[in-house]
Amino acid sequence: MSLHDEALNYHREHNGKLGMIAKTQVRDGYDLSLAYTPGVAEPCMEIHRDEDLSFEYTCRGNMVAVITDGTRVLGLGDIGPEAAIPVMEGKAVLYKTFGDVDAIPLSIDTKNADEFIKTVQMLQPNFAGINLEDISSPKCYDIEDALKEKMNIPVFHDDQHGTAIAAVSATIGALRLVKKQLSEVKIVVNGAGAAGTAIVQLLLNAGAKNVFMMNSKGAMYEGMEMSRVNRVQALLLPKINLKKEEGSIADIAKGADVLIGVSQSGAFTAEIVQSMNADSIVFSLCNPDPEISYDDAKAAGAKVAGTGRSDSPNQVNNVSVFPGVFRGAIDVRARQINEEMKLAAVYAIAELIPEEELREDYVVPNVFDRRVAPAVAAAVARTAMETGVARIMVDIDEIRDKTAARIRLS
Amino acid sequence: MSLHDEALNYHREHNGKLGMIAKTQVRDGYDLSLAYTPGVAEPCMEIHRDEDLSFEYTCRGNMVAVITDGTRVLGLGDIGPEAAIPVMEGKAVLYKTFGDVDAIPLSIDTKNADEFIKTVQMLQPNFAGINLEDISSPKCYDIEDALKEKMNIPVFHDDQHGTAIAAVSATIGALRLVKKQLSEVKIVVNGAGAAGTAIVQLLLNAGAKNVFMMNSKGAMYEGMEMSRVNRVQALLLPKINLKKEEGSIADIAKGADVLIGVSQSGAFTAEIVQSMNADSIVFSLCNPDPEISYDDAKAAGAKVAGTGRSDSPNQVNNVSVFPGVFRGAIDVRARQINEEMKLAAVYAIAELIPEEELREDYVVPNVFDRRVAPAVAAAVARTAMETGVARIMVDIDEIRDKTAARIRLS
Repeated sequence: MSLHDEALNYHREHNGKLGMIAKTQVRDGYDLSLAYTPGVAEPCMEIHRDEDLSFEYTCRGNMVAVITDGTRVLGLGDIGPEAAIPVMEGKAVLYKTFGDVDAIPLSIDTKNADEFIKTVQMLQPNFAGINLEDISSPKCYDIEDALKEKMNIPVFHDDQHGTAIAAVSATIGALRLVKKQLSEVKIVVNGAGAAGTAIVQLLLNAGAKNVFMMNSKGAMYEGMEMSRVNRVQALLLPKINLKKEEGSIADIAKGADVLIGVSQSGAFTAEIVQSMNADSIVFSLCNPDPEISYDDAKAAGAKVAGTGRSDSPNQVNNVSVFPGVFRGAIDVRARQINEEMKLAAVYAIAELIPEEELREDYVVPNVFDRRVAPAVAAAVARTAMETGVARIMVDIDEIRDKTAARIRLS
Repeated sequence: MSLHDEALNYHREHNGKLGMIAKTQVRDGYDLSLAYTPGVAEPCMEIHRDEDLSFEYTCRGNMVAVITDGTRVLGLGDIGPEAAIPVMEGKAVLYKTFGDVDAIPLSIDTKNADEFIKTVQMLQPNFAGINLEDISSPKCYDIEDALKEKMNIPVFHDDQHGTAIAAVSATIGALRLVKKQLSEVKIVVNGAGAAGTAIVQLLLNAGAKNVFMMNSKGAMYEGMEMSRVNRVQALLLPKINLKKEEGSIADIAKGADVLIGVSQSGAFTAEIVQSMNADSIVFSLCNPDPEISYDDAKAAGAKVAGTGRSDSPNQVNNVSVFPGVFRGAIDVRARQINEEMKLAAVYAIAELIPEEELREDYVVPNVFDRRVAPAVAAAVARTAMETGVARIMVDIDEIRDKTAARIRLS
């Protein structure tokens, strides 16, 4: 059977991939009187007294919304809100399976950023966090910034930050293998969209000092023609490509230690990889067909290679990130996911592989490694508490152990 | 333990009452490639081609939203969106348990009707139906009317129509017992809010000819002081109280055959019940303390009495209505729930008790009677197809049997 038919069967058989479940029983009139009237008035009045008790007495405490406007869905582009639902629903299934986070997919039928922002704001009472997904750039920056400012729950555009955390933790794992320092290596990020800018920002926050960012025309630098630079890119330009080098990816990748692709299939030729420094690291994250395949990157001399695909080693995938990040954030009822929490997730993932176990084909944990979400959740929760953005204090070991016990991987 | 403590425990123990469940498995990279990239692109492109395929390939096909603004929650009033969540979540649990309808609770944080309307409209892609809940009157009428006009999925204010269907089917059951005709009896509805006006409208649609509607000041009639009449009441006035009688409930209830209360606790005295016609029927639906208790109504001479409470006979409760109504509507992907479908639900419930089984204390099926939702679903689906509002045709017996098999009552 073709992938087309298999995928449609997979989605048709159970009418989608996600459903609801009652966590409490309603067997008789007594249960009914607790789940509904008159008993339900009790938690209502408690929450009326203290809004934060909604996290304790309702499903809000474990509920995240995966929200899109359908304007940039996977590589399919602006396919609209209905057509985006399978992706949002798939994300929700991954949240549940990998992190036991209850997630509801919501496509908002508007292309107007202000309307989108207002709508998400008005939905705040129901959720412990918001995962923004598949919103076109640069609108996604304005939306995320506005929502982060207005809302008191975490707002996280996974296409930006989940990808960044995955890519940076893979980079750190690979650098540990080849015994190079993040602060010394030359890193080239090919792509300056949502993922690219977020990767660059996180690399800088993690201590990288020699970072280049490429758009479709070439290397970006402070002082370049500004009509081709958006607000978020502009903030990064002073901190990258300090010598203001110009050129294509083939020019800039020469002598680079790390090459990260969030661009187009085929963007990295064998020559580009060969021109890199010794012990090169190449992560090609374009989905489903990477900038260069794992095998071709290795054949071209890369010491460490990786892609987003599950059929090659070193799969760099957001699914190792967002379930644990939100698990930890919502366990302490965090008000936001700040930079410190993102870095904590980066190191939690990277540190899962002890130095002695690192291999060229094993610098990132397997996405199905059950230790990932508990480690990420514990690190993110700890950091939320340490940086004063948690509403409640929870024992870290309890978060780690409880996450390990509750996730739905077989 | 007090009700207060029991109810809070019930809600705290599992962090609310509702969660998500993955209907499909994600055990390995292969499953991942179907649930998510690249396989998920297949249903996306199908839906992009034909929007209605979202009902087939995603959770939308079984998903209803229970939506409120928190402005009139139970008898607690305007307690706001966070405090309303337990009620919405309870409703969602009942949808799941009694009808296997997946329902998500959503509190919208705005008191502005236009904002509320726009927000719900923008959420249309995700749902097969909308249950409006606990919105203050008369705003609820404007909201429901506007959404019914703008949306292509059913929009149903359960406080109005669920209550009406429950009350009218109980009335019909009772009239069959006492062998009176709906078209001949005098019916007094005490209360002219959301529930009262909906009950009156449905009674008239069902063929009642001698109906009275009471507001807090007394009997309503065409020609009364219009400053005290809202838009929806105004539409009903020409069809009720045709002799334009004035007076209090005590005056108007004299000689009535049926008395339905959707008003305040204690509104019906023993004298009022005694003044009714022989073989009187008294349904006191004020929650949690009815207009008159079951025992007091019986002691005052009512032939048939009922309340909304589970601890007396003839419990008249919306939970016998909304799960089956939406089960049937969404099984045929109905575009609306029209008057014919509401009446079909009324008769489906009433006809579950054969004449020979009717008793004074048994004129409505027990809320936990497993036959209710299948019967209601089948009737509603059939009527949707017959009235041209269904998107797809489905075998009625299949709907009935599948509903019977899938509901979650023990």
